[in-house]
Amino acid sequence: MRAMPNPLVVMKFGGSSVAGAERIKRVARRIARERTNGSDLVVVVSAMGDTTDELLALAAAITDDPDPRELDVLLATGEHQSATLVSMALQAMGVAAISLTGPQAGITTDGRYGKARIAGIDPRRVRAEIGAGKVVIVAGFQGMSVAPLEAMDNSPTASDVHAAEMTTLGRGGSDTTAVALAAQLGADRCQIFTDVKGIYTADPRIADDARQLPVIGYEEMMELANQGAQVMQVRAVELGWVNDVVIEVLSSFEDAPGTLIKEDLLVEQRNKVRGLAHDRNVAKITLVGVPDKPGLARSVFGPLADAGINVDMIVQNVGHGGSTDLSFTIPRVELAKAKRLLEPMIRDLGLADITTDSSVAKISIVGAGIQNAPGYAARMFGTLADEGINIEMISTSEIRITTIIAEDRVEDAVRALHAAFELEQPESEPAGAAAAAG
Amino acid sequence: MRAMPNPLVVMKFGGSSVAGAERIKRVARRIARERTNGSDLVVVVSAMGDTTDELLALAAAITDDPDPRELDVLLATGEHQSATLVSMALQAMGVAAISLTGPQAGITTDGRYGKARIAGIDPRRVRAEIGAGKVVIVAGFQGMSVAPLEAMDNSPTASDVHAAEMTTLGRGGSDTTAVALAAQLGADRCQIFTDVKGIYTADPRIADDARQLPVIGYEEMMELANQGAQVMQVRAVELGWVNDVVIEVLSSFEDAPGTLIKEDLLVEQRNKVRGLAHDRNVAKITLVGVPDKPGLARSVFGPLADAGINVDMIVQNVGHGGSTDLSFTIPRVELAKAKRLLEPMIRDLGLADITTDSSVAKISIVGAGIQNAPGYAARMFGTLADEGINIEMISTSEIRITTIIAEDRVEDAVRALHAAFELEQPESEPAGAAAAAG
Repeated sequence: MRAMPNPLVVMKFGGSSVAGAERIKRVARRIARERTNGSDLVVVVSAMGDTTDELLALAAAITDDPDPRELDVLLATGEHQSATLVSMALQAMGVAAISLTGPQAGITTDGRYGKARIAGIDPRRVRAEIGAGKVVIVAGFQGMSVAPLEAMDNSPTASDVHAAEMTTLGRGGSDTTAVALAAQLGADRCQIFTDVKGIYTADPRIADDARQLPVIGYEEMMELANQGAQVMQVRAVELGWVNDVVIEVLSSFEDAPGTLIKEDLLVEQRNKVRGLAHDRNVAKITLVGVPDKPGLARSVFGPLADAGINVDMIVQNVGHGGSTDLSFTIPRVELAKAKRLLEPMIRDLGLADITTDSSVAKISIVGAGIQNAPGYAARMFGTLADEGINIEMISTSEIRITTIIAEDRVEDAVRALHAAFELEQPESEPAGAAAAAG
Repeated sequence: MRAMPNPLVVMKFGGSSVAGAERIKRVARRIARERTNGSDLVVVVSAMGDTTDELLALAAAITDDPDPRELDVLLATGEHQSATLVSMALQAMGVAAISLTGPQAGITTDGRYGKARIAGIDPRRVRAEIGAGKVVIVAGFQGMSVAPLEAMDNSPTASDVHAAEMTTLGRGGSDTTAVALAAQLGADRCQIFTDVKGIYTADPRIADDARQLPVIGYEEMMELANQGAQVMQVRAVELGWVNDVVIEVLSSFEDAPGTLIKEDLLVEQRNKVRGLAHDRNVAKITLVGVPDKPGLARSVFGPLADAGINVDMIVQNVGHGGSTDLSFTIPRVELAKAKRLLEPMIRDLGLADITTDSSVAKISIVGAGIQNAPGYAARMFGTLADEGINIEMISTSEIRITTIIAEDRVEDAVRALHAAFELEQPESEPAGAAAAAG
């Protein structure tokens, strides 16, 4: 895809990979080896270990309600630090390197503090440093927004002063930085180094025989990530999909092939469940005795959205006598805030009651073949029934079936479903698939 | 000096003043009180507590020889963090505030990593934020250098890319940031908050009756700082002198008047020793049997300067029989490096030997009146002789007399000289001086 002689690889290392001097040196050795293999390299790093949490704790010790602009400048320092240290470690090994902040790397954002989206990348400085023979280390999770300064109106001598502001991309934003740079630079591959070896059929800490997938499609990966598999950010996968970036998830601690996330041309032939995802960060809210009249959904979900509470599954039960029950799930950490918002509405909305349950969990089967095979739903529900696990809610998409169950049965459910769908068995893929994944 | 209605004050808080959340809140209360008094405020902060040393230790754990460019990005994060936290603390108290990095505050430098000098300040953003009613918190110790990118020559599409680079001003650089901002903004006063109450006639930990000076001239302050008084950076005092910035040194922990550093019009009338300074970070090197021929000084001091070793006092003794002894002092921490440089030269230079002494100290009397009163030198040397303290070297300037003595006698010397020059006695200043200092 590129006219330049060397292949270009973007490598991203997360916080646990750069936690402390020894791990930084190990990461540098890994980068140096890749460089010796003849690749041009752009390396994206997160903040070291718990740095981001420590900075948040420091801000929390000062104020309950930190200004998002100030918080972004504070948090961005974590990635500045790790980027410089990785660059120093490479230089100490004789590898030419330079660290760039997100703004120096030409990454601009839409300016929404704490949850900015990348608006564009001016790749010229990165390309110039690569052209000068350097490994370019980019501070992840951040970019610059440029906006006219509000106060300018009163300052006639300063009409060309603009406010270049640091913005951060939200949790996991370094994945997005890496994929966006890979897309903009036309990289041959984007490698995401993590503390797991790749994408598994289920959480290997629960299912002993969980199997690493050699390859997975973008859409399947997005569903898995959305449903609780915490290996990679949904946004980054989506960005890779839109820009056709081949992403590899692999271990920063072991030297082994990872999982490729790419356009999966074998989906139609495969017709199979690819993996399970589960999520314990779930609470269920039920509005009891909802009057059958228009506008109620807006009255309930509008304020939750305004408060930044992400509503996931919504199920409206069959009504009896003009009223019905409406259940939905939210992240468990938001339950207290949601109750404070909703309980004052009981009278206004004419509800009988609001009940909550914070001891539920979500479990999903994901596979691009599900849409063509109605038997999968029956097998999933039957397997859970055989285990004596009650299904509280169901939701489906074209490539996913999700159920809400009691949290204390989630590990039993993972193991039973893993066996029922024979996920421990290597897939019998058509010839050529193994080569594509290698 | 300014047309705006509110007085403008620049306040600078050092690392110990912002070490941790509680101290940051205390600093914020102090700033808020000053704001309530009706001043427009620009606040310069250093990195919290030991942050800079911790970052240096982290870099040292990665490499013995960190790239100065990377080190500057790393160190600058310390001031970014403290600036955002002070801003958050002010906002939590209802005081409108905004933090700016050195580059955002318009501070540009000459681009020398680790020891940059301020090249200019574009004050428009700071002025605009003040105009918007905000207290402006500026990250000290840093600025931006802008230079064309070297790699550009090979990159025809990127001919307008410039490299905006973070540079730091060296130890104590936040003092310089504060004074430079005060000069550029035409501030009414520049307050340097420290862990001492002001400038003293001698180190009060040694001389019990050391007295705080209400006012001191720029030149006297520079001599005191140069000779070991560690309250304020020499460069910042010099910058204040050139720009006529009134500087106040005062305690960040106590609410008491400090010492004003300003043009001292009373010097000619005062004619008095103002204070003592001493410095233990001294080593003496003696070149024994130096041949009496030209060029030797350059052969010795050239390589020391190239190695960044600051030579202080130089004394050449009277020669006997065509050769002489040459003694000079350097910072004690540089002694090992200096010996490695000089010892291979013994044969080439025709020296008899090189001897070193790292158990010496420097003690100085400083006062603008000294130049008109030759009796001060005699009184200083006589006082040391009465105490049985041997003088190893002597150096004088127009407003200072410095001696090198044995380090284990330095405290005796401070106390004896403090008494001999009656420094514990308040000065009988002409009317008006007390008001000027208040």
